[in-house]
Amino acid sequence: MMTTGIVKLAQETRSAAQKLAVLTLEQRNAALEILAEGLAANQDRIVAANQADCAAAEQGGIASALYARLKLGESKLAAAIAGVRDVAKLVDPLGHLQIHRELDEGLVLKRITCPLGVLGIIFEARPEALIQITSLAIKSGNGVILKGGKEAIQSCTVLTEIIKESLAKTDVSPDAVTLLTTREEIKTLLSLDEYVDLIIPRGSNSFVQYVQQNTNIPVLGHADGICHLYVDQDADLSKTIPLVVDSKTHYPAACNAIETLLVNEQIAAAFLPQIAAALTAKNVELMGDKATQKLINVKPATEEDWRTEYSDLVLAIKVVKNVDEAIAHINTYGSKHTDCIVTENQITAQKFLNEVNAAGVYHNCSTRFADGFRYGFGAEVGISTQTMPPRGPVGLEGLVTYKYHLVGNGQIAATYTGSDAKPFTHKDL
Amino acid sequence: MMTTGIVKLAQETRSAAQKLAVLTLEQRNAALEILAEGLAANQDRIVAANQADCAAAEQGGIASALYARLKLGESKLAAAIAGVRDVAKLVDPLGHLQIHRELDEGLVLKRITCPLGVLGIIFEARPEALIQITSLAIKSGNGVILKGGKEAIQSCTVLTEIIKESLAKTDVSPDAVTLLTTREEIKTLLSLDEYVDLIIPRGSNSFVQYVQQNTNIPVLGHADGICHLYVDQDADLSKTIPLVVDSKTHYPAACNAIETLLVNEQIAAAFLPQIAAALTAKNVELMGDKATQKLINVKPATEEDWRTEYSDLVLAIKVVKNVDEAIAHINTYGSKHTDCIVTENQITAQKFLNEVNAAGVYHNCSTRFADGFRYGFGAEVGISTQTMPPRGPVGLEGLVTYKYHLVGNGQIAATYTGSDAKPFTHKDL
Repeated sequence: MMTTGIVKLAQETRSAAQKLAVLTLEQRNAALEILAEGLAANQDRIVAANQADCAAAEQGGIASALYARLKLGESKLAAAIAGVRDVAKLVDPLGHLQIHRELDEGLVLKRITCPLGVLGIIFEARPEALIQITSLAIKSGNGVILKGGKEAIQSCTVLTEIIKESLAKTDVSPDAVTLLTTREEIKTLLSLDEYVDLIIPRGSNSFVQYVQQNTNIPVLGHADGICHLYVDQDADLSKTIPLVVDSKTHYPAACNAIETLLVNEQIAAAFLPQIAAALTAKNVELMGDKATQKLINVKPATEEDWRTEYSDLVLAIKVVKNVDEAIAHINTYGSKHTDCIVTENQITAQKFLNEVNAAGVYHNCSTRFADGFRYGFGAEVGISTQTMPPRGPVGLEGLVTYKYHLVGNGQIAATYTGSDAKPFTHKDL
Repeated sequence: MMTTGIVKLAQETRSAAQKLAVLTLEQRNAALEILAEGLAANQDRIVAANQADCAAAEQGGIASALYARLKLGESKLAAAIAGVRDVAKLVDPLGHLQIHRELDEGLVLKRITCPLGVLGIIFEARPEALIQITSLAIKSGNGVILKGGKEAIQSCTVLTEIIKESLAKTDVSPDAVTLLTTREEIKTLLSLDEYVDLIIPRGSNSFVQYVQQNTNIPVLGHADGICHLYVDQDADLSKTIPLVVDSKTHYPAACNAIETLLVNEQIAAAFLPQIAAALTAKNVELMGDKATQKLINVKPATEEDWRTEYSDLVLAIKVVKNVDEAIAHINTYGSKHTDCIVTENQITAQKFLNEVNAAGVYHNCSTRFADGFRYGFGAEVGISTQTMPPRGPVGLEGLVTYKYHLVGNGQIAATYTGSDAKPFTHKDL
């Protein structure tokens, strides 16, 4: 599709989003229920389109992990439909009064949450991501422009058709949901800062990095998840070993799995053989710095390992002098995602919690808890490793902004300026 | 200075900022008091450096408005020093507990505000901006890299020397404040996304736009302030005329002054001659669309006028059919800064408040109230017209972020996963 075609689509999405933004919670939730019903009623159509995608991918020689992500059978679809109804049950993120303040008698300021406008979502193979993100967009009053992976094109096309058919029966305009289908359109989408308010990329690290570096639109996402666990000299080893094993092996491909284990030198001789045995039993390959190599049998780790997200059953180990060296290592090589200290010393723990610069800083628990559902957000839109909010696991809150309403009865600024200025009352209501 | 030199300075600032980040409120406030005393004790040195800047600028033929901004006499300096003490009195923006939640027994999540890290501030002639922004940075626990206008180089150099001399007597490292002095260094600064967390540009629209388009670092600022006032058919004209006059003439160069007046066609014949007389009496030059030209004597306004921030005593006028056309005009041509409706009709007002997409949407009060001090924030770091928070006038809140602390006693994710998963309690504390 040519650029002008995409701009027109984006304008239509924006226009539909403006109407969606002012619907009531009841109207948005009713649309989600109709959407869930529409998807359920068209299960066969969806599964057939997905089978066509899967067949084409098999012919093209797709990797088995990718095939598993692409495949949308009845049970995955049922779970995705249940997810739409779960989103309907979430607390409304719109209309929250964050500030309510009298500036002067009869002049009242409110800060109220409202939708961002239009979301641009770029995802890879998983077609059910389209269902999830569309329901989150509708719940939060946002329009959405979707771009799925080329492997999932038939699944995404049919899903979008059904979503639009369903929305046509609701107060949400079908134009609020737009699908782009070619890879070339990504570049145009990233340039539409006039029409798109937030880009959420869901894909490989290099893809997220590409998106971050090629748009002026804010991006919610993380390129790397280089998480650390630091075992302090005052760690309780019986607690430490399950924590390290869980943080590394519970789901090694996840961004909140650890990549580097930092071990205090005073505890290294006692701890390293134990943890090596536990991890080796779980098929984890170990790399280590010189000090580690002296204590256990590991491959040498280089500077490059400290910057590597293995996303696999591989762990780099470094022996450090003290908590300060651990903090310095994390603040140098980390990706500001999630880092943990294991210690029974409260003062050391507090120092670590204060000084590590990351979205999540943990004490005596697995890094795998870094997740919107586990945090109790009800949904996870993404995990952000940028410094500005929203940061860390982001729920529906990440899809809304706020605006200031100021309501008066004719007040002018001149009254509150100069030598006989009337003072403001600034009274929170 | 070469790029490597700037990178080294930025690393030193970041390292000093990490120590500043964990100081107590008392330590940060004590540093501000010593800073205020240091500036007061060195008044003569500051004024002399500023006089040298002013003399050089006069020789170079500086515009009188710019000269007025550059000039830092005793009274302006005294006000800036009082400002430092005012910042010390502000509520601490750090350590606020935004979320406090038990995920399970003994596994507690906290979301706590913390400093961003290092701020990059680029400002034009006004040397006292350096004092204000440095005190806001210290208060909020952030390091700061400053780049002043070339006209103010001697003032900025001496101010930074005195700030560093003063900080040497406090718990805040002098390295937390760094001054860059050449224009070439701006480009390098904008590329330091590894060391700088937020850029705040203070200057002309074109300069802010340049900054926004040339960095991956988040930017707090606004390129344009195209504010509107819409006079509805149900407006009380006796209220409306002072509101329009104040919004346009109280400080026409300000970003929160209106540039376009939208007038409902039903009230245009009665209203336009009155407002034209009131504005002409204040030397405002009027432009108008065809419908306006039929009713009052104005120059023709073109499409370009709807996109223009005059920053001067000029106002474009357009007659619209109804509130919907007014909202559509604002959402098309506005800069999402501040827009106002004047009406006695509550339903129309609510529609306008809901549907206009801007940081500030006002009803029956002057757009000139869009200001951090007037909102009761105690300070204004900047005004942002981006859609994501922070938006609108931004106080100290804009200089902080948050992190998640999760503290447990050995909990692992595997316990909460799978068929016999332990449920989370998700209980807010």
